Amino acid sequence: MNKIPVAILGATGLVGQRFITLLDKHPWFEIAELAASDNSVGKKYGDAAKWQLPYEIPERLAQMQVLPCDPVKVQAPLVFSALPTDIAGDVEVAFAKRGAIVSSNASPHRMGADVPLVIPEVNPDHLALAEVQKKKHGSDGFIMCNGNCTTIHLVLALAPLHKRFGLKKVLVTSMQALSGAGYPGVASLDIIDNVVPYIGGEEDKVEQEPRKFLGKLRTEGKGGKEGGEGREGREGGGGREGGEGGEGKEGGEGGEGGEGGEGNAFIEYADIRISAHCNRVATRDGHIETVSVEFVGDSATHKPKFEDIVAAFDEFRGLPQELQLPLAPEHPTVYRREQDRPQVKLDRDAEKGMATIIGRLRDCNVLDYKFVLLGHNTLRGAAGATVLNAELLYAQGKL
Amino acid sequence: MNKIPVAILGATGLVGQRFITLLDKHPWFEIAELAASDNSVGKKYGDAAKWQLPYEIPERLAQMQVLPCDPVKVQAPLVFSALPTDIAGDVEVAFAKRGAIVSSNASPHRMGADVPLVIPEVNPDHLALAEVQKKKHGSDGFIMCNGNCTTIHLVLALAPLHKRFGLKKVLVTSMQALSGAGYPGVASLDIIDNVVPYIGGEEDKVEQEPRKFLGKLRTEGKGGKEGGEGREGREGGGGREGGEGGEGKEGGEGGEGGEGGEGNAFIEYADIRISAHCNRVATRDGHIETVSVEFVGDSATHKPKFEDIVAAFDEFRGLPQELQLPLAPEHPTVYRREQDRPQVKLDRDAEKGMATIIGRLRDCNVLDYKFVLLGHNTLRGAAGATVLNAELLYAQGKL
Amino acid sequence: MNKIPVAILGATGLVGQRFITLLDKHPWFEIAELAASDNSVGKKYGDAAKWQLPYEIPERLAQMQVLPCDPVKVQAPLVFSALPTDIAGDVEVAFAKRGAIVSSNASPHRMGADVPLVIPEVNPDHLALAEVQKKKHGSDGFIMCNGNCTTIHLVLALAPLHKRFGLKKVLVTSMQALSGAGYPGVASLDIIDNVVPYIGGEEDKVEQEPRKFLGKLRTEGKGGKEGGEGREGREGGGGREGGEGGEGKEGGEGGEGGEGGEGNAFIEYADIRISAHCNRVATRDGHIETVSVEFVGDSATHKPKFEDIVAAFDEFRGLPQELQLPLAPEHPTVYRREQDRPQVKLDRDAEKGMATIIGRLRDCNVLDYKFVLLGHNTLRGAAGATVLNAELLYAQGKL
Amino acid sequence: MNKIPVAILGATGLVGQRFITLLDKHPWFEIAELAASDNSVGKKYGDAAKWQLPYEIPERLAQMQVLPCDPVKVQAPLVFSALPTDIAGDVEVAFAKRGAIVSSNASPHRMGADVPLVIPEVNPDHLALAEVQKKKHGSDGFIMCNGNCTTIHLVLALAPLHKRFGLKKVLVTSMQALSGAGYPGVASLDIIDNVVPYIGGEEDKVEQEPRKFLGKLRTEGKGGKEGGEGREGREGGGGREGGEGGEGKEGGEGGEGGEGGEGNAFIEYADIRISAHCNRVATRDGHIETVSVEFVGDSATHKPKFEDIVAAFDEFRGLPQELQLPLAPEHPTVYRREQDRPQVKLDRDAEKGMATIIGRLRDCNVLDYKFVLLGHNTLRGAAGATVLNAELLYAQGKL
Repeated sequence: MNKIPVAILGATGLVGQRFITLLDKHPWFEIAELAASDNSVGKKYGDAAKWQLPYEIPERLAQMQVLPCDPVKVQAPLVFSALPTDIAGDVEVAFAKRGAIVSSNASPHRMGADVPLVIPEVNPDHLALAEVQKKKHGSDGFIMCNGNCTTIHLVLALAPLHKRFGLKKVLVTSMQALSGAGYPGVASLDIIDNVVPYIGGEEDKVEQEPRKFLGKLRTEGKGGKEGGEGREGREGGGGREGGEGGEGKEGGEGGEGGEGGEGNAFIEYADIRISAHCNRVATRDGHIETVSVEFVGDSATHKPKFEDIVAAFDEFRGLPQELQLPLAPEHPTVYRREQDRPQVKLDRDAEKGMATIIGRLRDCNVLDYKFVLLGHNTLRGAAGATVLNAELLYAQGKL
Repeated sequence: MNKIPVAILGATGLVGQRFITLLDKHPWFEIAELAASDNSVGKKYGDAAKWQLPYEIPERLAQMQVLPCDPVKVQAPLVFSALPTDIAGDVEVAFAKRGAIVSSNASPHRMGADVPLVIPEVNPDHLALAEVQKKKHGSDGFIMCNGNCTTIHLVLALAPLHKRFGLKKVLVTSMQALSGAGYPGVASLDIIDNVVPYIGGEEDKVEQEPRKFLGKLRTEGKGGKEGGEGREGREGGGGREGGEGGEGKEGGEGGEGGEGGEGNAFIEYADIRISAHCNRVATRDGHIETVSVEFVGDSATHKPKFEDIVAAFDEFRGLPQELQLPLAPEHPTVYRREQDRPQVKLDRDAEKGMATIIGRLRDCNVLDYKFVLLGHNTLRGAAGATVLNAELLYAQGKL
Repeated sequence: MNKIPVAILGATGLVGQRFITLLDKHPWFEIAELAASDNSVGKKYGDAAKWQLPYEIPERLAQMQVLPCDPVKVQAPLVFSALPTDIAGDVEVAFAKRGAIVSSNASPHRMGADVPLVIPEVNPDHLALAEVQKKKHGSDGFIMCNGNCTTIHLVLALAPLHKRFGLKKVLVTSMQALSGAGYPGVASLDIIDNVVPYIGGEEDKVEQEPRKFLGKLRTEGKGGKEGGEGREGREGGGGREGGEGGEGKEGGEGGEGGEGGEGNAFIEYADIRISAHCNRVATRDGHIETVSVEFVGDSATHKPKFEDIVAAFDEFRGLPQELQLPLAPEHPTVYRREQDRPQVKLDRDAEKGMATIIGRLRDCNVLDYKFVLLGHNTLRGAAGATVLNAELLYAQGKL
Repeated sequence: MNKIPVAILGATGLVGQRFITLLDKHPWFEIAELAASDNSVGKKYGDAAKWQLPYEIPERLAQMQVLPCDPVKVQAPLVFSALPTDIAGDVEVAFAKRGAIVSSNASPHRMGADVPLVIPEVNPDHLALAEVQKKKHGSDGFIMCNGNCTTIHLVLALAPLHKRFGLKKVLVTSMQALSGAGYPGVASLDIIDNVVPYIGGEEDKVEQEPRKFLGKLRTEGKGGKEGGEGREGREGGGGREGGEGGEGKEGGEGGEGGEGGEGNAFIEYADIRISAHCNRVATRDGHIETVSVEFVGDSATHKPKFEDIVAAFDEFRGLPQELQLPLAPEHPTVYRREQDRPQVKLDRDAEKGMATIIGRLRDCNVLDYKFVLLGHNTLRGAAGATVLNAELLYAQGKL
């Protein structure tokens, strides 16, 4: 089988290095080009990257010459982007215009109305937005994004709950690892024997992105008919969303006819109020989050049972598992029964770093339930997410 | 002036060591006796204690022989207790019965109906419960407690808000320092590059103790009369608490007998719902907490203004400041305007470790407001709190 | 192929857990019995062990009932010992007497005159001492030991130098990881933001054990004959060691009796003066050591060339590589050319944690050369060493 | 008394911040000007400095406008320099030429033949070199330096030994704190759970600077006369250093002109061979060093007694103690008897961070003795040293 040649933009940074290790022996993709910022261009990758991982750079890649992040010079049809925020916006659009599919870990396009913000287990149907973009770009290229590293694991834990029971409020406090800030990132003097209760821009991402991930794909003007489908396995809910029901429904793909078809697809954000406190702590990898949630409906009558929530976590599966994507975890959400788990050092690498580990579900005196979650921030929270999105495209024949 | 001789129970542990440093040159108290567990008894204190603080043990105390925790052998009229939970209960009662005033950092008696659980800036009037105890003990001795280290700083931040505006919901996530677990406490392998999202028994303390601290001193059968005092500078709280005013169940045990007076005093718990997530992180000293709060009344009409909340923090004072107690901070609550403060390493020692440092006040999408607080857990959160309580008694002529 | 059933003594500790992971899917050995201290006996292993490693206990072993460390109740012919120092001495002898081969990580027997202290790449011939022991025990059982975790990596780095050039002085400072102290081991408050320049008993081990590892197997009364073998590729060592050749005091105890042969075998310690400074630092795994060495002969004429020393490290191989033992690293010593390597976090897991990583070779102003070395302390420095020793026996048909 | 106005160059960095705190309420000096790099110039100091210390910037200084490091714009007669290496060289000379006395913590001029490299307890007589400089600069200005942070504490421990017994070899391994690298300095991902066995340029400084500190002030052509001063309480040093006595090359540049006097002064380096291994570890402040030393003479006959060495540490005093300089520690070297001290977190702040704490003196198998030392790297190892040097000038009437 011929592998698809891929390029990595921002290849020298921490997330870029994770791309290297995830893609080096990938069954479907082959690293063809490495691109980075100007001061790396022209160097061998092994000289340009300050390698941070506890195994060697594959020799073939160490010898590869670093290219500029220029869609003319980088030719691969599939591009993984770990570009920094301040330049990702324009560069990714340029690549999409020249026809590349850009699977991005960067934030600028995440909330774009025509940009699929996707976790394959959660909202693979949102990929339909790609068609909107293709028209705009006048090419077969488009950008798809994964979320912020804290958001992704939060959404993986919330998705099984929201799909079964409906969520309306989420209060989350994160304790985030150092690798989330890149390299050199956080100065050691700022974090040894310290906690920093502030991460610039983070709380807003954590509060907004989940509403798009958990939102519904709609097609303009046709929602009324299909608005009643509600959530799986449970009635009601309709009332909550009824007011919005007229706008659309899941999967506007059906909407051929009329002038636009998929061109009219959009995401109706989930009606969940989220509040986040984001903190930096002195761990290397693995974001841990304490979460309190409230479900839709009157708590006295609608509050789900403890065992039903645990079952939702235990049983959660999606397309990656069904399609057996190479990077897919066997269980995207893992619920641990011990009273003191998950812990960062013990659980971050579970399921190849591609799952969200949950524990300590218990009643909350303020909202309905509370629990703890943990996830690897540069694997499922970044590079792994980006690669999994591309694997989904491949398995669906969209590459 | 003759200083009052005092004893320290549990003198060899981390909190005991803090007592040593706080009391060594105290203007009103003089360390007369040091007591600890059996394997320390008879040794010189300097040999018995594994000293953890970055300055020397005062020579006089290093040479002092350690006594057993026995109210016959320890004669001081004022006793500071840093005893471990499993033995504090009985030992402290024995001391109170022989007439000692016990200022305790231990948890067993905190929620006792006749035990004053006091922060001098917050609820000094609760000391009236001592009279109930004296009758029960048949002596002039009694036990008074300070709260859990995480609770005290939470309450210091909540008190100015509750007194001005009334609180009804609090959601808190703590990131607690290692010294909170004593010595040897947390194994290094359990915390380097890790966060442990569980501290046995802690969440329950943080959820219950503030309701007593922020509760009202009542006298049985007279609740109705006093129910209207409400909170300072704002009307309307009466209705909220009126319904519970007659119940008085918390203090009911003490109330048999006829003479009335303080013998019938009890605490009506504050009607606040609190939910806590407690975590251990790799800091040496200083607990940091993210807090979301909701005020009484309809949020649309009753939500206080941002500047009024900051003013409440800025202006908060109490008896320790008025009486100029030796350990009193100038400002018990300090609000910092920087976007990334308080930080553990930078702010834990502010105001001699006796204040609660607050920052990052902002709107919360789920409750009304959210903020961060930080406090030194073995100073204002433990030994400093215990000593301040005794200073209050002294200044009020009650020793 | 039938696997050899093995037992693990001290299975619940940190090193015991490493045994579990190294032996769980071993091609030659099968874990048949797990033994530990009294308070674990009778429990399921999964309940008895406080698991510290970032992957799950194999389910079969989690369900296995823990046995006492009793040679009657534990029946396996091959026993791996991770027993604590204070009980290992007697228990291991009891196992040897009932006929078991004990591969031990414990220290009490290491310096015993008839106990092989072995690193398979360095001194596999020392296993001949087993015959001395068998006679003494009156069984086919014997104890063989690996060294202290700091010693093993030091010896792996020194062996290629000593064999080629002859060493006479070694000055080493270690910076040792927390896992070297077991669990719970070092209290977190003792090591966060700290270095402890003292590890009880460690310096003596590091100064003495290498002299046995690098010593020569002799047979009483025949020392003179064999004294001339010297070191590989270089003449003249004979004179240096000749003076001690006739003494043979170290192994003398075993040697009464008649037929000679291996029964008279003993180890003539290497004539190297070693001085060690041992320190504990806040790393999880991986001991790093700075080493200065002086070679035999006049420095002006005999000091080896830089490139010859690097070649000695690069080319070092032994029986494990030749016999392709399952746990053998491809390269037991790895010399890195970067100016800032080896580093603990980057290099400790190289070669499956079974190699010693060396770097920064340069002239020393006091001795001849200096360099840095790093090794994983619970893999090649403990459990991995013990298993490799057993693999050597197996491959040589001695099991 | 009128205080002497002083300026701080490089005021915003870590060492600059330490200058602020040491000089803010100084009895003899008053901070008149703060200077820093271009991107700080014109800002208020409180806005320009990223303050790292756990207490507030004094308000007067927070409001002070930052000046450029220009000898025309900065007018103070006494200047403290915490400038970075790459610019300190030229800027400090410019200040000296306009007549300022520059007390510098920077490295470029330390080894200059006419630059006093001074620790007041060790070699205050070296200040005579200032006269050489004044002539060269044609002004009353000159530069004097303190040593590298690792060097200073090493020299403080070696000086009492060298003065009493004579040293010939020193082998040192340092474990250096993060603040030694400035801010932001070491990336957190580079040091959490890690040791970095390399600090650029450090080993050379530690190997060379002590030879100047412990060297002798000579006057060209008069070396013979003064050669006999030897070391205190012990004969014979003259012979050891005699061979170099006539060379005087280090100070040769200054020697044109006729009148002799101090203009011909130079330093004859101590004849000690020093080898250093420098490592970075995850501590905030406080460098710890393991040291092995060999004394002059035949070890069999000249090796000092253990108790004499301890006495040398215990009794060491110098001009700062005699003159009662404000920053002087009571004991510049403190020997601790515990088996596990000094420790970074417990001892770095002893004697206001201005002493070197020593412990664990014991025989060394390779050299004569070995011990551990610890010192605060930004106090006595940097800012404190610079200020103490200026205090010495003041007390001697040289300002």
